[in-house]
Amino acid sequence: MKARVTVMLKNGVLDPQGEAVHHALDALGFDGVNGVRQGKVILLELAETDAAAAEKNVGEMCEKLLANTVIESYSIEIL
Amino acid sequence: MKARVTVMLKNGVLDPQGEAVHHALDALGFDGVNGVRQGKVILLELAETDAAAAEKNVGEMCEKLLANTVIESYSIEIL
Repeated sequence: MKARVTVMLKNGVLDPQGEAVHHALDALGFDGVNGVRQGKVILLELAETDAAAAEKNVGEMCEKLLANTVIESYSIEIL
Repeated sequence: MKARVTVMLKNGVLDPQGEAVHHALDALGFDGVNGVRQGKVILLELAETDAAAAEKNVGEMCEKLLANTVIESYSIEIL
């Protein structure tokens, strides 16, 4: 079973990486970009076969390691 | 219109970040994780209102800036 975790900075938290991408896109002539936010995605291959148990387990991984919940939010998709 | 770009290292390309996460999960007692790959996700807010045009435009952004297509693959979702 696979799980995809997406970790993004919370709204209101400055995102210098996203800003840098935004500036670079502008410099390359890509107009019409109003905002850029960059985050990370973590693909997990799990031995677990029960989707609910997998999601609970991955949630614990997020809380303990994958996301800094002070400034980041995460979402989990079981694939 | 929003677009989400996911950039992952291609299969076969070593992913030290993913390996580090894998080791850390093991160290925290999370068994049953068989593999971890880490990539990045970029959320774009676009002025474009036509989905097909937006996708084409974002594809160019990926080729020129967002992904290193020698070692990375990307996927685009229009939201």
